[in-house]
Amino acid sequence: MTTVHAVGIDVGGTKAYGVALDAGLNRIGELRLPTPNDPDGLVDVLARIAEHLGGDGPVGLGVPGLVRRDGVLVSAPNVAGLRQSPIRELLAERLGREVRIDNDNTLAAVAEWQVGAGRGVQEMVLVGLGTGIGGGYISGGQIRRGTNGFAGEFGHMVVDPTGPECPCGRHGCWERFASGSGLAYLARLAAVKGQLRGVLQAVGHIDAIRGEHVRTAAGDGDAESLAVIDTFARWMALGLMNLTNALDPELIVISGGLSDDPELFLPPIERHFRHAVFAGEDRTLPRIAFAELGPSAGAIGAALLSLGY
Amino acid sequence: MTTVHAVGIDVGGTKAYGVALDAGLNRIGELRLPTPNDPDGLVDVLARIAEHLGGDGPVGLGVPGLVRRDGVLVSAPNVAGLRQSPIRELLAERLGREVRIDNDNTLAAVAEWQVGAGRGVQEMVLVGLGTGIGGGYISGGQIRRGTNGFAGEFGHMVVDPTGPECPCGRHGCWERFASGSGLAYLARLAAVKGQLRGVLQAVGHIDAIRGEHVRTAAGDGDAESLAVIDTFARWMALGLMNLTNALDPELIVISGGLSDDPELFLPPIERHFRHAVFAGEDRTLPRIAFAELGPSAGAIGAALLSLGY
Repeated sequence: MTTVHAVGIDVGGTKAYGVALDAGLNRIGELRLPTPNDPDGLVDVLARIAEHLGGDGPVGLGVPGLVRRDGVLVSAPNVAGLRQSPIRELLAERLGREVRIDNDNTLAAVAEWQVGAGRGVQEMVLVGLGTGIGGGYISGGQIRRGTNGFAGEFGHMVVDPTGPECPCGRHGCWERFASGSGLAYLARLAAVKGQLRGVLQAVGHIDAIRGEHVRTAAGDGDAESLAVIDTFARWMALGLMNLTNALDPELIVISGGLSDDPELFLPPIERHFRHAVFAGEDRTLPRIAFAELGPSAGAIGAALLSLGY
Repeated sequence: MTTVHAVGIDVGGTKAYGVALDAGLNRIGELRLPTPNDPDGLVDVLARIAEHLGGDGPVGLGVPGLVRRDGVLVSAPNVAGLRQSPIRELLAERLGREVRIDNDNTLAAVAEWQVGAGRGVQEMVLVGLGTGIGGGYISGGQIRRGTNGFAGEFGHMVVDPTGPECPCGRHGCWERFASGSGLAYLARLAAVKGQLRGVLQAVGHIDAIRGEHVRTAAGDGDAESLAVIDTFARWMALGLMNLTNALDPELIVISGGLSDDPELFLPPIERHFRHAVFAGEDRTLPRIAFAELGPSAGAIGAALLSLGY
């Protein structure tokens, strides 16, 4: 039997997913369980996953929230069981093992950088698309966490102050346009304007339009759906340009829910991006790549965190 | 006579300003001369400044443009004499001394971090306000230049795609609102809307309104001018928030043309900023400080560059 070298668990809003890696960082075990919405239930589930995966070293934990550099979780709007709970201490006590915790997208960035699309890169930005947009970045060959540990919250970059309201209280954050819910917003906006007729007819009413509907119809060649994908790609490129002007990365990795369909999304994003970077004609542009580790990136990054990244 | 330890020259659009520092990094000499708009004339002037300041080590050069990490200047829209000219090699040949070159705002960040407002800080962002907005940032106690050397071009972060056109070709770059020319734009916009009547009456016509007019009138307590300063502060805070969400700095240093009037600008910027950061109630916010080195920061940074920063 192969020895468990590292264990990491990614705590999502609906599922908690754990992986065990061997010394070669190959996945040798995994377990996915629903995320309970109370702290006690959550600790139970995380302990069950860790015990199932084995090992006796530290356990890495990725969470969708702001994690201070000292490991204190200060905000996790989408996971009720994490709110105001010292989850790291509770789990460590329960397991009798050290628990290390960090932001899920920061850990996805570590994973893609170490064993995914960003191997060998010194300057990398990861943009994680989900309901919102999270992120992480590597500079000088080191993960950058900022002063408090909150670096990489790219989704709340305001790109249009007259845009739709964001749950964070402001208007026109990048994630209102360029995330999974952003795609749905842009699709409904198109339908309100009388476009996207095929999708609307199939779905029944505007409220019911989701990103998947547009993706499926665009994949079938529906012109109005492709136009929505193009608008989405323009917003993606706008944010990627802002990050490029600030950070000048060698590589941008797009991860999360939309990264399983690079054929649909990557060409229009690249086209808009080339036209959008300051002094674009005078400089080498960063490469844009889709994540290689898929939805496992957060858990693999959490396992790497348990090793000290 | 004190020995010259380091020499740096900041090449601006209208003036080139050089400083000599002693081993304690105190300024022991300076010279300011007009910037010629041809490469030969510019090399002459830079050589005269360097020779006047003395020393025999490397000379540091700060320029308003994109400088590659290998020292090649790839873009300098505002200095005709720098365009397409290998200024570093020409000056090195002329002086028989090594010449090191970097972006002026990157060097201002180095200077403020080493001997100015950012002493002792590990995570710092500098935002340099001039006609546009440049910048630089420190992370993990190191200046970050990005892959090519172009990191810190915060001014071309798009914050409103329906905003005014930028010379870069896009619309609504941050520097259209939050720079020196941004203040003038916001003032003219207010005048077009029938506000800013006192200033308009004094100046004569809308085209002639400049940032200084609003600053002076606001300093005298003119309510409509103070309202323009408040709008300006809101745009400043919006961009500073975007940078904070991405980089999570400990300190933001505002340098350049407006930084000589912190009493007017800092309180409204801080007020808007507190309301604008994601999860602002759950986190320690970065301090915002105005630069300590004034317009000398670029030249002092260039002198530090000559020492190897």
